[in-house]
Amino acid sequence: MSDAHRAMWERLNLDLTAHDGLLEVLGKFYGDIYMSQENRLKGMEYMDFVLSEVHGLRIKEIQDAKAQGHKVVGTFCVFVPEELTLAAGALQVGLCAGAEAGSDLAEALVPRNTCALIKSFIGFKLARLCPYLESCDLVVGETTCDGKKKAYEAFADLAPLHVMEVPQTKSLAARDLWYEEVMRYMAVLEDLTGVTITAERLRAAIKIVNDRRRVLQRLSALRAADPAPISGRDALLINQISFYDDPQRFTTKIGELCDELEARVAAGQGVAPAGTPRVLVSGCPMAVPNWKLPYVIESSGAVIVGEESCIGSRNTRDLVDESGESVEDMIEALVDRYMKIDCACFTPNEERQENVAEMAKTLKVDGVINYSLMFCQPYAHEAMKMEKSLEGKVPTLSLETDYSMEDVEQLKTRIEAFVEMVS
Amino acid sequence: MSDAHRAMWERLNLDLTAHDGLLEVLGKFYGDIYMSQENRLKGMEYMDFVLSEVHGLRIKEIQDAKAQGHKVVGTFCVFVPEELTLAAGALQVGLCAGAEAGSDLAEALVPRNTCALIKSFIGFKLARLCPYLESCDLVVGETTCDGKKKAYEAFADLAPLHVMEVPQTKSLAARDLWYEEVMRYMAVLEDLTGVTITAERLRAAIKIVNDRRRVLQRLSALRAADPAPISGRDALLINQISFYDDPQRFTTKIGELCDELEARVAAGQGVAPAGTPRVLVSGCPMAVPNWKLPYVIESSGAVIVGEESCIGSRNTRDLVDESGESVEDMIEALVDRYMKIDCACFTPNEERQENVAEMAKTLKVDGVINYSLMFCQPYAHEAMKMEKSLEGKVPTLSLETDYSMEDVEQLKTRIEAFVEMVS
Repeated sequence: MSDAHRAMWERLNLDLTAHDGLLEVLGKFYGDIYMSQENRLKGMEYMDFVLSEVHGLRIKEIQDAKAQGHKVVGTFCVFVPEELTLAAGALQVGLCAGAEAGSDLAEALVPRNTCALIKSFIGFKLARLCPYLESCDLVVGETTCDGKKKAYEAFADLAPLHVMEVPQTKSLAARDLWYEEVMRYMAVLEDLTGVTITAERLRAAIKIVNDRRRVLQRLSALRAADPAPISGRDALLINQISFYDDPQRFTTKIGELCDELEARVAAGQGVAPAGTPRVLVSGCPMAVPNWKLPYVIESSGAVIVGEESCIGSRNTRDLVDESGESVEDMIEALVDRYMKIDCACFTPNEERQENVAEMAKTLKVDGVINYSLMFCQPYAHEAMKMEKSLEGKVPTLSLETDYSMEDVEQLKTRIEAFVEMVS
Repeated sequence: MSDAHRAMWERLNLDLTAHDGLLEVLGKFYGDIYMSQENRLKGMEYMDFVLSEVHGLRIKEIQDAKAQGHKVVGTFCVFVPEELTLAAGALQVGLCAGAEAGSDLAEALVPRNTCALIKSFIGFKLARLCPYLESCDLVVGETTCDGKKKAYEAFADLAPLHVMEVPQTKSLAARDLWYEEVMRYMAVLEDLTGVTITAERLRAAIKIVNDRRRVLQRLSALRAADPAPISGRDALLINQISFYDDPQRFTTKIGELCDELEARVAAGQGVAPAGTPRVLVSGCPMAVPNWKLPYVIESSGAVIVGEESCIGSRNTRDLVDESGESVEDMIEALVDRYMKIDCACFTPNEERQENVAEMAKTLKVDGVINYSLMFCQPYAHEAMKMEKSLEGKVPTLSLETDYSMEDVEQLKTRIEAFVEMVS
């Protein structure tokens, strides 16, 4: 890493020694899990570069944008409407929550029986390890689960925080509540940035975010091919980077990668032989560098062809209607789009069962692996429902894990047995 | 138990053998924990009688009411507005959720990492052990925590269920959502009972429920005396029975008991010597027969002088304004009253910190014990906040437990040390 990067991290008040250690582990982990792959796409070079500079050049870009007067908004959830953030001239970034860093410190603020993702975001803050978080002018939380909802109360003492109330049903009254929350967020953004969100600005922002969704939908559709043209690890990484990278540059790069994928599919080429067991991973989000389970699955004779999670199809399936002319029209369209999210925070949430069944069919999967973070109650409940709703359609395996490496052998044993069963 | 009771339980399709076992254990447990107390109030004889007939005479009354055309509504939460239920001519009862019965069966429907209360209510249903639940024409659930919210999805296959969405903040939009939910519940009740809720009916129902709250407030206030005139176990039992018993009869009986308490206080008499360390128990609800922690506390040299929980002050602190003249006025008053509840489901929930500090002062407590059921995330988070907010004011001890007896010795050791420290 360059001296300029180090100076920047120092200005951001990172714990430089611990941060060096984190980057070293991340680099080695990435090497083992990503660089070891065969038949990789040329387009993944961009991802390798972005990841190698995830705390470097991208943070530099963000700092440069800040120097030009742009604000930075950090989030942990796909419910925060990026369209509004961009329309206010701010940048929106997903925050670090995928590694065990600082989790021991986090246990002073949140209960031990808290999922690894929440402990991680508190831990990254307390251990001063996330340059994205330290770049934020505002962090936007939400009420999607008890764990996050209550953890934000402690987090509010650590960072500038705004919390959006996400409703728990899809009634008209719940939609009204969400509408008010979107309007309230718009006011907060205008206040933060000094920018008035006009129809022109919002239309452009909706287009940018929809374009990113469209290119990720294109990527998803290409994964229906057998042999699978891209590994699940690489596809997950692309989805992960979609939360960090400049959205327009990212869309262009993934478009090029999809061109390459199309050529592969046409040539009948893939990352694993035709007939390799195809797995859909469904459940909790996997934040960078939470690559453990995909690596174990793809080292057990299977290939992952879909990620049904917030860092996956849940974030890209639905577009915002682009026909609105006024800000009011567009807000209504935004509200409608976000209320379609099939998060386990809703009750009931039958759409998710239907969406997973549909993905399993379209992507021709041989098995669904339900992934829950330990202590994530919403997705643990839905894993049990998923097993029942997919019974007789496609085999399922439900796994609960966290960010530690202690259970890797145990996971491998269960996954190998599952892959053998569905082969 | 009489043959008539057995015939009734058989008609309710209870598992008679398992139910006999449950009543036997309950009787023994009650004997050990309640009948062993010294200086007990004469007024507690009524409670002993009610509890001895909790699955007998009270169920008979409910069945008789059903035969006369009344409907029965069961709940697990203080957010379900009993005023509306009564105004529709229905009975409202709290459902069994305080014992381990059937918890092993429950793990087929809810994750292992689910709190004991939720496993219990699912378990009571699957094991056919709760005559209240089997008497219900409708069960009303709510979205107060992830565990219950998602468990109701499984429970909906087992019983006639209506779920109310409780908001997660106290914004105006959140209040609007709750207003709509109250109106929706009213429509469900009118549909269920065929009764139109008139101003006259609703006014009478509000009076009944307020009167019960008032007498329980009177009971709470009398516990400020030193020596404590009633044990925490008995006070908890009274609060527990308030969810089962006929509300008007209950109010009369507790009024009589309060007269006796007043005489005791005037005479300087109590259940423990003056100067006995006084404890406030704060946190998760304790449903019948979850008397483990109060028993351990009061066997460790302390006396409990307040229960800050849903089966305690949270259910009785706030009255519904009685000045409304129209149904609309009264609904607004109901909505306002229920939005004051300081449940850990809200974020933020500073009122609860203030209410606990206030109780600690009024009741002259020497220590606060934060009680969380294992895997109850909302109250576990708030226990950590409570420790901080009470620091320097009153000593606190946070305990996590479940319904098993395995940790009794461990709890006793920690509680004895705490009691010694605050003495």
